[in-house]
This record gives sequence, C-alpha cells and structure tokens, in this order.
Amino acid sequence: MLIEPKILKGFRDFLPEEAAARKEIVHKLQTLFESFGFQTIDTPVLEYTEVLLGKGGGETDKQVYRFNDQGGRDVAMRFDLTVPFARFMGRNEAKLPLPFKRYHIDKVWRGENTQRGRYREFTQCDFDIVGTDAVSADLEILLMMHEAFETLGIDDITIKINHRGVFSHFLQQLEIDEQLIDVMRSIDKLAKIGEEKVRELLLELIDEKKVDLLLRYIKPEESFEGSIEMMRQLCGGDHEEIRRLEVLYRSFQELGVEDRFFLDTSIMRGLDYYTGIVYETFFNDLPEIGSVCSGGRYDNLASLYSKTKLPGVGSSIGLDRLVAALQELGRMEIHHPAAQLAVFCMNPRLQSYYQSLAREFRRRGISCDVFLEPKKLGPQFKAAERKNIPYALICGEDEKERGKVSMKDLNKRINHSMISIEEAAEIIVSANSAEKGT
Amino acid sequence: MLIEPKILKGFRDFLPEEAAARKEIVHKLQTLFESFGFQTIDTPVLEYTEVLLGKGGGETDKQVYRFNDQGGRDVAMRFDLTVPFARFMGRNEAKLPLPFKRYHIDKVWRGENTQRGRYREFTQCDFDIVGTDAVSADLEILLMMHEAFETLGIDDITIKINHRGVFSHFLQQLEIDEQLIDVMRSIDKLAKIGEEKVRELLLELIDEKKVDLLLRYIKPEESFEGSIEMMRQLCGGDHEEIRRLEVLYRSFQELGVEDRFFLDTSIMRGLDYYTGIVYETFFNDLPEIGSVCSGGRYDNLASLYSKTKLPGVGSSIGLDRLVAALQELGRMEIHHPAAQLAVFCMNPRLQSYYQSLAREFRRRGISCDVFLEPKKLGPQFKAAERKNIPYALICGEDEKERGKVSMKDLNKRINHSMISIEEAAEIIVSANSAEKGT
Repeated sequence: MLIEPKILKGFRDFLPEEAAARKEIVHKLQTLFESFGFQTIDTPVLEYTEVLLGKGGGETDKQVYRFNDQGGRDVAMRFDLTVPFARFMGRNEAKLPLPFKRYHIDKVWRGENTQRGRYREFTQCDFDIVGTDAVSADLEILLMMHEAFETLGIDDITIKINHRGVFSHFLQQLEIDEQLIDVMRSIDKLAKIGEEKVRELLLELIDEKKVDLLLRYIKPEESFEGSIEMMRQLCGGDHEEIRRLEVLYRSFQELGVEDRFFLDTSIMRGLDYYTGIVYETFFNDLPEIGSVCSGGRYDNLASLYSKTKLPGVGSSIGLDRLVAALQELGRMEIHHPAAQLAVFCMNPRLQSYYQSLAREFRRRGISCDVFLEPKKLGPQFKAAERKNIPYALICGEDEKERGKVSMKDLNKRINHSMISIEEAAEIIVSANSAEKGT
Repeated sequence: MLIEPKILKGFRDFLPEEAAARKEIVHKLQTLFESFGFQTIDTPVLEYTEVLLGKGGGETDKQVYRFNDQGGRDVAMRFDLTVPFARFMGRNEAKLPLPFKRYHIDKVWRGENTQRGRYREFTQCDFDIVGTDAVSADLEILLMMHEAFETLGIDDITIKINHRGVFSHFLQQLEIDEQLIDVMRSIDKLAKIGEEKVRELLLELIDEKKVDLLLRYIKPEESFEGSIEMMRQLCGGDHEEIRRLEVLYRSFQELGVEDRFFLDTSIMRGLDYYTGIVYETFFNDLPEIGSVCSGGRYDNLASLYSKTKLPGVGSSIGLDRLVAALQELGRMEIHHPAAQLAVFCMNPRLQSYYQSLAREFRRRGISCDVFLEPKKLGPQFKAAERKNIPYALICGEDEKERGKVSMKDLNKRINHSMISIEEAAEIIVSANSAEKGT
C-alpha cells in the first residue's frame, strides 16, 4: 500500500526553479542588509508558549501552532520574527553593542484561513535598529526599504508613511481617548470598505463634528509638505513629531529619493505597539495585493522580558506576497539554469575524465552538470534544454587524446570543435558578462 | 512582572558572530553544490505524521515533535531532510528531469537526549542524486564530499567508504541471514565498545568460526586495493559490487584525490535503507566527535510514496557537528566584522550627508555602518572596535564643504585626512585584496 505523498493545506513544496528564484531574492536582500552593517541572528523555531505569547489575548494566539512536547512542556512555533527578537534581546542584551542593527530572514507559521493566497508557512525578512530613538535610525530603515526594492529591480512602488505620535496629538485635540482603539480600527478599514462605511462606523463612536475632522485628517494632501502643513493645522500647532517628519522629508530630498515616499495620514498599522512613524509599501500597479513591506517605530521592544528600555524602528518584507506580486506582474525569473555547462556522457569509461574537465571549468567559476549516464545525443540535448543549461561539452576519446574539448552553444546552435579548455571557458565567461552588460 | 526570556533545552540563539560564521559555511556549501549543477528545493517544516513516519516503528519515531493542529490533523515536524525529499519526489517526480540532483540545507528537529552536545534543533546539508544507479553518480557524490571540505579549508579529514552489497555477499557466504540485522548492529558498535565486546555480542548470535571470519572482514587493510583483494577472498570470488569499488578507486587516482579516501570494511551505517556504498567522514585529529558527513547508495528513495523506482546516492553534512569540531580545533572565524567601514556621527545635522557618503562606498562594494547617534570620539571608536570594523570615516562640515573625507585605519592607526571618496574606497579595497592574497 502506497502512502499518498500529500502536503498540508497552506504549506508548499518549492521546485528547483521557484526555489532558486526565491533564494536569489533572499540573497540580494541579505547582501543589501549587510552592506548597511546589519547582522543576522538566529533563534529557535520552537519556544516556550508563555515566552512567545506573553500576556496573550491577541488575535494571533488562536493561529499559533502550540502543543506539549515529549517532556510535557507547553511549546509553540514562532508566528513572527519580532517576538523572538524581543525575547532574544531580553536574553542577550548585555552581549550586544547598542544600537544593534539586526536582520533575520526565515519562516514563520500561523494556522490562518488559507483563503486569499495566504499561507500557513511563510517567510519574513525583518530588519530593525534597536537601542536608539534617533530620527537617523528612522531614516536609515526607510532608505533600506527604498534600496531593497531598487536592488530587486522594482521601481514602481510607493512607501506610504504616517506618524502615530502626530495622530495621537490630533486625537487628544479632539478629546478622543477612550474610543481610541476602536477609532483606529475603523480607520484601518478605509482601503477595504471605503469612506462612507468608515464614516458610519465612526458615527457610532464619536459625534459628527469630530468624524468630519477625522475624515479630513486621514485624507492626505498630494505633497509631503502639504500633508505636514495640514497635520500642523489640525493638531493645533507644531509638535516634535511633526518636525521629525520634516527632517525625514528634507533628508529624502537631499538623497534624491523623495519621489518614492508619500505621507499618507490614513496609514495606521493595527498594532498598539507602534508609537512613532509607521509605513507600508505598495506596488503602484497592484495596490490590492496589500503592503509588501511594513513596520514602524516602537517605544520599547523587549518590555515583556527586560527592564532595559529598547526603543527601535524596524520593517519587514513579506517574501511570499512580494513573490506573488512579481508573479502577477510577470516579473519572476523562471528559467534559472541548473548549470552553465553540461558535460555530456559520450563514453561511460571516461567518467573521471569528465569530472576532471568539469573541475577545470568550476575553477574558472563556471558551474558544470556532469551527465552521468551514456545516452544518445538527442536525449542529452533534451535534458540540457529542460535544465536551461546554455552550453554542452561533447567530448570523446578523440578530444581527450588531443587535450581539447568540443563545445556547443545550445542557444545559438554554434559548434566549437577541438578548442582548448581556456578557449571554451572564455566563450562562456564573455557571453555571461555581455549578458550582464545589457 | 517580567517574563523570563528563557529558551528550550537543546535549542539555541545564535549571536551575530556565530550566525555569520555559520552562514558563511552554508554559503560556501551552496556555492559548491550549485557549481556541480545541484539545485535546491524547499519542503514544509510540518507534514502529515502518517506521511513522515510511514509504517513507523523506527527509533526516531519517539523523538519526533508531533501534535494535532487547529484542524485536528495529526502533524509532525520533519526530523530529517531525506523523508521529506522522498515524499517530494513521490509528489513531483513528473515535473523533474531524471537523474535529479538536489541539495537542501535547513533545520530539522528531534526531541533527543541533549547529552553529548546533541541538539534538538539542528541543521543538515543534504545532497543527493536520484534516478540513476550509475557508479558515476557514486563518484560525483564522493567528489563533492571531498570538494566540500576543500572549499571550507579543511584538509585533515578522511572519508571512509564501505559497500553494503559486498558485505551482503560475504554474509551469504557465511550463511548468515536471519541474524543479519543483529550482526550489523553489533558491528556498528565496534568504534564504541571495541573488538572484544563485539566478539562477545557476535558469539551470542553465530558460531565462533563465523565470528572469526567476520572480525577478519571488518579489519581493513592499509591500502584501498589491499582491502578490495581481501573482500574478494572472503566473499569467494569477484562480484559486480567489488568491481564498482575498483572503478571508484581508479577514478580517485585519476583525479588525484585517492589520499582522502579509505576503504573501511567496518563502516555499516545503521539504516537498512542503504544497499550500495556507504561512507562516513572523520576529522583525523578528532575522530571521537563522530562522522561529520555520511550517506550512501539506496535502491529506492520513494518506495513508500510511488511506484516509480528511484535508486540514488546521497550524503549529508551535519552542520552543528562540523562547527563543533572546528571550534574544538580552534578554527572557527569569530571576528566577523559588522561592516568594513563605520561612518562616525560627528554632527547629527549631517545624517543625510553621512547616508549619501555611505551610499558612495556601498556602490563600490564596501559595507558601511552609519553610526546614528552623536557621541564623543572615544565611544565611537569603541563601538567600531567591538563590531570589528576596520575603518572609520570621520567627517564634519569641513570635509563636507571641501567634498573630501577623513578616514582612519583602526588596525594600523593611520589617519588619512582630506582625501577623496575614490581614494578612501581604494585604500579599503586594496587592503581587502591584499588580505585575500595572503
């Protein structure tokens, strides 16, 4: 009796081409984060439930994969990378220089509803600066978001910024305090249900005059500076937080990146957690897929675990949503070659010779897939094509005796007979650099 | 009330330096595997328990993290990367070209006893070729093992090979059949309990004459060829499997790597699973840490899930044991710099200028940690030192106005005042390439 090789709903296999494309995105992000002096850490996938869920009661709690382990301990799989980071800082703070810049790219698990392209196993790419409340840290995180999309070749996104602290001033001005959470939740639904419905929700909470002012506040001006001015008016004057937004905008201008940022006074980010700037990132042509990179500034990362106050600012790219967006826009590279050169098996007795040829190419930075079974040329060409390998080395006793190789360019269908290894390698390398140049 | 930020026994946090060192090893292995045309795949961390454990009953079963998920499904966390690979092939076989060369580097979980430096969360680096029984595949896997250690700068290891098929012939010759599993288990204990104790165990299973022959068989000759000859004698003549070993050894010689391989007739690899060659890899100066890379040839990978017969050969590097060995030998790089250049914060109003300077260096491939808080020079030097950053950019209004930078080489304690960005970058790049050259 065979076992059906099924997988759980919301979980996925990644075949080589998609796995390679995802790995390439992750590698580019790692390289970028490290170029900013960010260091990676690693934390366990399983933690004590009481440590992960803290005082609990949140929406995510029900979604957490939680069980008793062999020793009867109540354990849970991490549902994000932020809580483990907070726990990590609580535990290792003394060993780390502050401010600490860390990134962490890995899987997390939530037993959510799998509708609307949500997965139960998905990958987050987090980057945070903790231990400082300097605006320079806000700037750096926002620049990194900008650079992250640049490095992925994505220039049609907009990073929408807001400031929770400024909004709090505005709500104080309106004398909205008790209804604060409900008001924010209502506003958070703006993109989904539209202004009219939000208005109805708000009217259940506060009086009409306040509703009008609120709806005015969350309608940003076209220009960043215009929205700052509007904030200043509706908040009844200047505030340090408004000046922070101005510093940020001036910095964007000085760095020539201001076009990518939009001050959107309706961005709330549900979590109570955030206290300063908050941001979300949308594809201009695909806003409906939701934010692909979000975060903000928080007052105290590890308050559950440590007396040390750790203010910080961070952001997280949702790899799966990003990939879904790129696929929908037709921009995922799906022809990742298994290798640059296939070494055909013309004579099984020459296996170690083929391996020694491959070694010569590998030493020159050219990846080689040595074909292992003697087959007719047709099937070998077909295998190379299926693996997107652009060159084939086709050598028998003749080539071996003369210390030469014969190579075929499978795209251009050009044969290079009886050339040296150096010449063959040179053909591949220069074709590669020509391709990168275009 | 604070929550104690504790972690589960057998699980670990990795601080930046160790995380970076581990990441570098993994990156080198990935690059090597890809240079051989191996492609990565990804599979879920959680699977249906019935799929992972199959008919069950193995030793690992008790160690598996297993529970009911929110939907009442009986699920388990993967305990190795082989079973998920078998399941993956059963599910996706039709979409893959055969032979298929895959690698997979990721975490697995086993609730084992945490004594003797064993962890409950650990990382395996698997590489396999499935869909062929050609000896050329055995050769390629063994060469990759050799190259893996070369690329990590480790040249004091020995790969010990044996052949389960030859051993089976020998046991048939001895008319040992029913006691086969127990005999193999006894021999597997040789390194741990010594020959005398193994002899006692064997005498409980088979008669003395057979025990003597067995103990003779599992004592390899010094030379690979000598052991092959001994096998031939004790197996009562030649066998295809013995000729396979000869082909392998001749190939090692042709490729000049024969010194790293040793034919050890006592290597058994507990699993019933293996049918052809088996191998283990030991540090010459640290054999007691156990094998750091093991595997073998199997008849049929996915027999539980598919009617298609998939013979293959594979190997797995245990990252944690490898790192433990390197640490014990004092060979783990632990001074991984957070960045190559620290941009000191001399004037907080110059933040966007510092970011623009950093951008110039990053464009030239130099990672930059922009310091975010205005502090005295002393603490900034200290922070750079603590992060192992070798250069500091120390710029104020003066430098900015003149379009120059001042840089300090923190190791050599040399100041470079009022130089251009190009000159500064050149100093760092040429120091880097000089270091690589030595």
